[in-house]
Amino acid sequence: MTVAAEVLAIGDELVHGGMLDTNSKWIAGQLEAIGLAVRRFTVTSDDPGDLRAALAEVCARADVVVATGGLGPTLDDRTRDVVAELRGGPLWFHAPSWDRLRGWLQGRGRPVPDSNRRQAMLPPGAVPLDNPIGTAPGFAVPLGRAELFVLPGVPREMQRMLLEQVVPRLAARPGLEPVAQHWLRVLGPSEAALGERIEPYMAAGRNPAVGITASGGLLTVRLVAAAASREAAHAACLATAAELRPLLGDWLFAEGTEELHELVAARLAAARRTLAVAESCTGGLLAARLVDVAGVSAVFQGGVVAYSDASKQALLGVPADLLHAHGAVSEPVAAAMAAGARQRFHADFAVATTGIAGPEGGSPQKPVGTVCFALARPAGVAAWTVRIPDLGRVFVRDRAVFEVWRALLREPLAD
Amino acid sequence: MTVAAEVLAIGDELVHGGMLDTNSKWIAGQLEAIGLAVRRFTVTSDDPGDLRAALAEVCARADVVVATGGLGPTLDDRTRDVVAELRGGPLWFHAPSWDRLRGWLQGRGRPVPDSNRRQAMLPPGAVPLDNPIGTAPGFAVPLGRAELFVLPGVPREMQRMLLEQVVPRLAARPGLEPVAQHWLRVLGPSEAALGERIEPYMAAGRNPAVGITASGGLLTVRLVAAAASREAAHAACLATAAELRPLLGDWLFAEGTEELHELVAARLAAARRTLAVAESCTGGLLAARLVDVAGVSAVFQGGVVAYSDASKQALLGVPADLLHAHGAVSEPVAAAMAAGARQRFHADFAVATTGIAGPEGGSPQKPVGTVCFALARPAGVAAWTVRIPDLGRVFVRDRAVFEVWRALLREPLAD
Repeated sequence: MTVAAEVLAIGDELVHGGMLDTNSKWIAGQLEAIGLAVRRFTVTSDDPGDLRAALAEVCARADVVVATGGLGPTLDDRTRDVVAELRGGPLWFHAPSWDRLRGWLQGRGRPVPDSNRRQAMLPPGAVPLDNPIGTAPGFAVPLGRAELFVLPGVPREMQRMLLEQVVPRLAARPGLEPVAQHWLRVLGPSEAALGERIEPYMAAGRNPAVGITASGGLLTVRLVAAAASREAAHAACLATAAELRPLLGDWLFAEGTEELHELVAARLAAARRTLAVAESCTGGLLAARLVDVAGVSAVFQGGVVAYSDASKQALLGVPADLLHAHGAVSEPVAAAMAAGARQRFHADFAVATTGIAGPEGGSPQKPVGTVCFALARPAGVAAWTVRIPDLGRVFVRDRAVFEVWRALLREPLAD
Repeated sequence: MTVAAEVLAIGDELVHGGMLDTNSKWIAGQLEAIGLAVRRFTVTSDDPGDLRAALAEVCARADVVVATGGLGPTLDDRTRDVVAELRGGPLWFHAPSWDRLRGWLQGRGRPVPDSNRRQAMLPPGAVPLDNPIGTAPGFAVPLGRAELFVLPGVPREMQRMLLEQVVPRLAARPGLEPVAQHWLRVLGPSEAALGERIEPYMAAGRNPAVGITASGGLLTVRLVAAAASREAAHAACLATAAELRPLLGDWLFAEGTEELHELVAARLAAARRTLAVAESCTGGLLAARLVDVAGVSAVFQGGVVAYSDASKQALLGVPADLLHAHGAVSEPVAAAMAAGARQRFHADFAVATTGIAGPEGGSPQKPVGTVCFALARPAGVAAWTVRIPDLGRVFVRDRAVFEVWRALLREPLAD
């Protein structure tokens, strides 16, 4: 007996091309971690008819539904009204929610518009879910065959409410089958070639399930196991990973469900080593990803985005004659950029990228997709070139970023 | 009579917490532009049972369905098989697709594994859709009440095939009602306060529909109009925008459906002015967003990510006594960072950010969320401070980025 869950994201801005729904993915990960079987995501607009149909269908199929969005103070936020309609009764005013909401706004020196009162209204039979960091309370209510949880669409509010109030309630349900994941990161083969290598593991119905995801030249072999406990599911993933490792050989360069830049930052922190970056074609992407990691300032010293020859000279000390002799996209210039960044940021290691992301700038000798890399370390500088397939500017830059993470994950960091 | 459309994204990695579905949003934007009414997105795994149920339901509801994913060469790609099952017949081998696919791989010097043959199989009644930049052909097939288009999940392949092969077919349908959007960007009020100001425009059923989206402190008033032609829909948006402008007053700082960094780059290009950035708390985000814009190297000279005091001195020439006297998070240091970047990158303008993104580093005088900005221009440097609410590291950095875009969009760039 599994507990089937679905996720519903509500908002005109999600369906009509304005914003990306990032909530559903995050929610699904949390629900699966405690053992719910997530079957489907649905994204609907705030249109009352569309929203009513989607809510009714989702709650007729699943045991548990987590819905986000449409709880704001403005007239285009209609989730409360539609749930009340489906429950067959009027909204009611929950005075404690209004007091808390008013106190929250006043404590921040903000005005309390009357329209915020709408956010303290609840559908019949609903239990309020407190929002400790925003104005919109959520609620839990039975609907159809489902236990429905409605949370605000603002990610930080939704996340905190799910973790503190929804997950503890759901974790007590019988029939849960916790899921664990493990990812193997691969650069090198085509998706088809990788698939043939590990084909016996990819058949439908296996546990752990093994699948391949391709993104920006990076292939991820995803292992998903369900078991009686999360520990058992995790152990099943690791057992299969141990069988896959020899098949993947040198293609494999990282493991775990952390993002690659998180692995890089953690590895530098563990070795107490610091890093700087000098970016031409990756244009700040390396720095921006690293700075996403909280506490990264202990290992990340900074970076330079140096597009022009003049800035490579002025900011990184690349000699003019090197640029003249080899061109900006060359291993000697990449090496000088890395060495310059390492020295100026007083870092243990520095990486540099210089290449042609396109669509302009290619030549027969250096076609679009040619990227030179360098890694400066205490013992000296290594430089290398990768010919990335010209599958568009975004692809070339993403693939170049993965190349840097691979180099840093393979580099021996200790003395 | 409207033509109802739905979007279906297929992939274990989408449902089980690994990857974000970015395709549906993009597809919906394209379909609405030619006049289809997009009602819902559905995301399902590759599990044959789940996929069959989702496909059947979606194709029973909508006139047009665009599905992406599950067309790869490996065993976990099951979309072809499930569509064949729903069509009630076996897959058939489409020799021209196999020839093209083989030629595509050979032309790139890649091996042709036998498993790729699977990608040339089509469900009964399907018409192949050519994939000019990848191995997976798509197909069009009638299913339920819908005309179903199945495309690969790789965004660049899907996008090209949709634009070149799906959109032209759909644009010929009768009953289309093209949609246009217009966005008004606002910084300052709370969502509730903004909603009260424009409440009469936000009632359900209005055309243009007016909604508010909040993200990282930025509020976007979204206008969506449907009309007999795209031009008429656009004109309806602009007429409502003209009514809203006086209500928004100084809160409003940008208009249009371009991203803010695209507006900044276009404005600099039109004025033939160049920009450099010096980033502490935004840590490369400004540079990374700018470099997303193709052709930006004509206006963006580069940037420095300078976390440490030492790097602010070495890379940007910030005087040590300034850092000592005022601290790194101060207007004088922001001003020196901007001036240093402007000079070293030989740029017309330079912006600098230095602040406390958290969670560590706050003090009573300078709490988490305190960010100092500077804008260096030919006529001198302006510096200012914003106290951003401490709603988390990501929020503080996003809000700081929006502050920079606003400053650059309001700055007179011409001499």
